[in-house]
Parts: sequence; C-alpha cells; structure tokens
Amino acid sequence: VIDTRRSALIAIDWGTTSARAYRIDAAGGVIAARSVPLGIQNVQDSAFVGALDTLLDDWRTDAAPRIACGMIGSRQGWIEAPYVACPADLAGLGGVLTRTPGGELAIVPGARCLDPAGVPDVMRGEETQLAGALAPGDGRVLAVLPGTHSKWALVERGRLIEFATFMTGELYAVLLAHSILGRMADRSASTNAAGGYAFARGVARGLAGDGLAHVIFGARTLALAGELAPADVGDWLSGVLLGHEIDAARAWAKQRGDNAKRVRVIGGDTLVARYAGALAQAGIDAELGPADAAARGLFRIAQHADLIL
Amino acid sequence: VIDTRRSALIAIDWGTTSARAYRIDAAGGVIAARSVPLGIQNVQDSAFVGALDTLLDDWRTDAAPRIACGMIGSRQGWIEAPYVACPADLAGLGGVLTRTPGGELAIVPGARCLDPAGVPDVMRGEETQLAGALAPGDGRVLAVLPGTHSKWALVERGRLIEFATFMTGELYAVLLAHSILGRMADRSASTNAAGGYAFARGVARGLAGDGLAHVIFGARTLALAGELAPADVGDWLSGVLLGHEIDAARAWAKQRGDNAKRVRVIGGDTLVARYAGALAQAGIDAELGPADAAARGLFRIAQHADLIL
Repeated sequence: VIDTRRSALIAIDWGTTSARAYRIDAAGGVIAARSVPLGIQNVQDSAFVGALDTLLDDWRTDAAPRIACGMIGSRQGWIEAPYVACPADLAGLGGVLTRTPGGELAIVPGARCLDPAGVPDVMRGEETQLAGALAPGDGRVLAVLPGTHSKWALVERGRLIEFATFMTGELYAVLLAHSILGRMADRSASTNAAGGYAFARGVARGLAGDGLAHVIFGARTLALAGELAPADVGDWLSGVLLGHEIDAARAWAKQRGDNAKRVRVIGGDTLVARYAGALAQAGIDAELGPADAAARGLFRIAQHADLIL
Repeated sequence: VIDTRRSALIAIDWGTTSARAYRIDAAGGVIAARSVPLGIQNVQDSAFVGALDTLLDDWRTDAAPRIACGMIGSRQGWIEAPYVACPADLAGLGGVLTRTPGGELAIVPGARCLDPAGVPDVMRGEETQLAGALAPGDGRVLAVLPGTHSKWALVERGRLIEFATFMTGELYAVLLAHSILGRMADRSASTNAAGGYAFARGVARGLAGDGLAHVIFGARTLALAGELAPADVGDWLSGVLLGHEIDAARAWAKQRGDNAKRVRVIGGDTLVARYAGALAQAGIDAELGPADAAARGLFRIAQHADLIL
C-alpha cells in the first residue's frame, strides 16, 4: 500500500535510547513511522546532524517542518531547550521552541515544577505526550506515564499543574542486576506481560505502604524460604515497586486535592498492562491510552507554533 | 605490653567480607583481636579450614574452644546453621550450636521471624550482637544495628521478639554506582563522618515519609538545579535513605506497641555517628553501644553452651 498523502509535519520523539520519527498529514494522521536506536546516549561526539539523517533516511528531502521532543533538548542532547515552569499550558509549549543551530529541528521544552518543600522535578518528552493525550475539554485529570522513570501528573484543562517522578523502572533494573536481590532470581525466565500471580502478590505487598527499603528485602527472604521460585523473583519485585509507586502517588495526588479514584495511563509498551493490573488491585479505575500520544502531542504543539504547512 | 592472661574462648565474627577473631579471658575480657579480609565471599572453593588457619595464625595452637557467628553459618558458608524462630532467647542460642564437620568451630544459628503478613525476615550475626549488647535486665528495648542491611529489632528481657531488615546501605551503594543518581555525584569527595548539612537536608526529606522511589530522584533534580554540589550528592542521598529507614522503622515499632522514643544503636563503625544525627533529627533518643557487641555476645552464648574453659 502506497500512501500518497502529503506530509504536513515530521515529528520526532528523541529519547535516551532511541529516536522515533513520524510523517504526519495536515489532519494530524500518522502516515508512516520509523525508529532507530540512536537515542542521545548512543550518538557519539554530538554527531546529531548525521543521526538525524540516519533517522529520516529518504524523508530527508521532505520539505515538511520538523519538530522534536525528549532528551534531544537536554544538556546532553543537541541543544538545551530550557524547562518551562509549571503550571504550564501544554499546547502553548509551541510558543517556546528552541531551534538547533542549523535550523534542522524545533525542540519542545521540558517541564519543571517545585514541590511544597521546594524540591524541583523535571520531565522531557512526557509533557508532549500529555499534550497529545489530553485536551482542554478533559477537565482535571490524574495521569501516569509508565517508564524507566514513571511520571504522575495533574493536568487541569490542558495545563500541567504539577508532577512527580518515580524511579520504578530503574530501581527494578538496578536491584536485579546489582543487588543481593538478583542473586536468587532466574532472570532468563520469561514472564507474561501482565505479571501473573507473583506480580500480584508483590503489588499487594507494595500497596501496604511499609518502608520500601525493608519491603524489597522480601525478594531474598521469600526466595530463601522457598516461597518464591527463582523465575518469580523478578515479577514479585516488579509488583512491589509498582505497588509502592501507586500507594505513594495516590497520597501525593490526595495532598493536592485529587481523590485518585481514576487515572489515565498513557503509554504504548507492555508496562501498561502491568499498571492496569496493579491499579485495579489498588481500587483505582484506569483509562488507557492513546498509544501514539507523543505524535499527537508534537502535532498539537506544532499547530500552536504555526509550524504546520 | 605482653598480656599473659590465659584465653578461655576464641570467638569469631565471620561475615560476608571479613572475619574477625577475639581471644577472650574467663571473665569475658578481650585479650586480643585480629581480622582478615577472608569473608565467606572471598573464600574460594569452600577452603574454610585454610581460611581459619590464616585468621588464627599463631592462635592455632591455643586450646581454647572456638565459637563463630555470622554468614559462616549460611548456606554459602562452611556449614548451614539453621535459623532459630522468633521469639528467641538470645543467650539460649548457645543450646543450638552447629559444629563444622571437623569440629573446628561451633556456629551460632541465625534468627528468623515472620511479619503479620507471613513474610519472613532473617539475620545472621546481629542476633549475637544483640545477645552481647542487651541483658535480660534491660527490659524492653528497640535496637538498630546499622550496616549494609541494617536491622531493627525488638528485644524483651533477653528475648528477640521480631525484627526488620532495611537495605539502606546496599541501596546507597547500588544507586550511586549504577543508577542515574550517581552521574552528577563526585564520589571522590571526602565526606565527614557525621554527614554535614547535605546529609541533614536529606534526612529531613527522608523523614517526611513520601514515596522513596520518588524522593531519591531529588539527588538528580537538586543537582541539575545547582542546589546540590557534586560533592554533596552522596551525603544527601545517604540522608534520604536513613531518614526513610527511621521513619518506616518507627512506624514498624509503633505497630508493635513500642513508642519508638528511644533506640539503642549497636555498632562500631562510622555509620553510628550518622544514625545518631539522623535519630536526633527525628526526635528519637539514641543510646550508643557497646562497640564490641559481637565479642560479648559470642562469650555470653558460649557460657550458656558450657563452652568456656
């Protein structure tokens, strides 16, 4: 099938480990997508011009304007796109794009907020997913974007009010690979996407709200006692960390006047199934999607910036 | 000074990374101590007979009985000394020693407990330190033994009621070495033993009781914002983890009927100064010591086992 629609925008979600590009038509529809493993940590000597050529390949001659979000705008990326402070109008991020020196890309800023104790939090890329997933008409929404660093955000009529990062995915990877908890785990064991019974047991344990530095030790003691098979240690730990995240994020949302009865889960990977299961265990209604939030968000921001051809 | 007192016991605290031996007289006084880096993870091919010879050196000809505690009694050690279930009489551990096959050592069992949810916890070595630090006349005591895996324990008239492990020290090491939090840290910077201002700020943050997987991310965001110098990132993170531990352990003790107004800090290393500072911030009175709790405990347990010459 050859799609002959003309592209109105080339939109790039350029993160730490990979870069994904979309050709988008004037109505916001995705014509085609491609990705390369050239995330910013895999680009040597700041060779971003070449990396962009590799990503775009035969799209290089496409005259459509180009917009990007994610770590490409960080200090370690192509050019730093300074953070916008919360509360921030999400579509309005189009008013503060940063151009690469050669004009190759317009880059969406990340977002920054301060918690009541004055400690900052930051995101890059998730603000664009939020812009794509939520419309001003959605009213007040509590959202989670699962990932290595998952983000919980409060959005009110298209404005990002505040957010909080949880290092859930990175903790999982680091603890299994480098702590005593990984010693009794069979990490080659295949796990089902939803996690199964060991995952659900872990979620219940994490939701109980006991100190995380204590609770995770159960990955060792349950295995020592023969109550957790080596193939299940990873799923149990994943459940504990997710239960902890949901318990703490719910408290975080309640402190900010949200009853946390319902949450929008934004993301496209297998983590979403685990979040849906864990949220159900916590008695929280989960609404899923959309999966292509980044492409939608880049389109919406580009529209606001009058970039669309 | 040559000490001519006759030894009544050779007591060995044999852990994961090192082994420490004491010659003890009939009154329980330590005549001499020595240590070697031959913890069980550094003994190749289960060559424990040779490792013991290296540790004892010219004490090998000493006819005094020998007792040991710690990871040497684990499944990965010389011979497994099965766990004793809580509640456990600490001095009474002398009644259930396990002999090495050649009769070289009598090994103290570790302790095991179950929390109300049925999840086990374990210790090896700390039960002996508790036996040395606390006497039946001490009544009810809440104790903490700082370390890679710190242990909080409730002891009542010489009986270990229940305990909880916190992976504080290991989390600190693993996060700095292997997570994004270590990237902005200057780990070569010397820190004072008590931790200084960055540590105290971290403790306050950890004591606030927010979700640990969120709070630790501040080690990155505060550094990004220039509010935490690279040399202070480690101290701040150490404070957060210790504050989290104290907050969660206090809740744990309260659930078990202890008001957690006072805690005995048992240990001999530099961590004790940090715990004392963090406990003061939490409004908890800290009683310190003794530093030689393992030697005292081994002596007391050996007495109970009628091992003393």
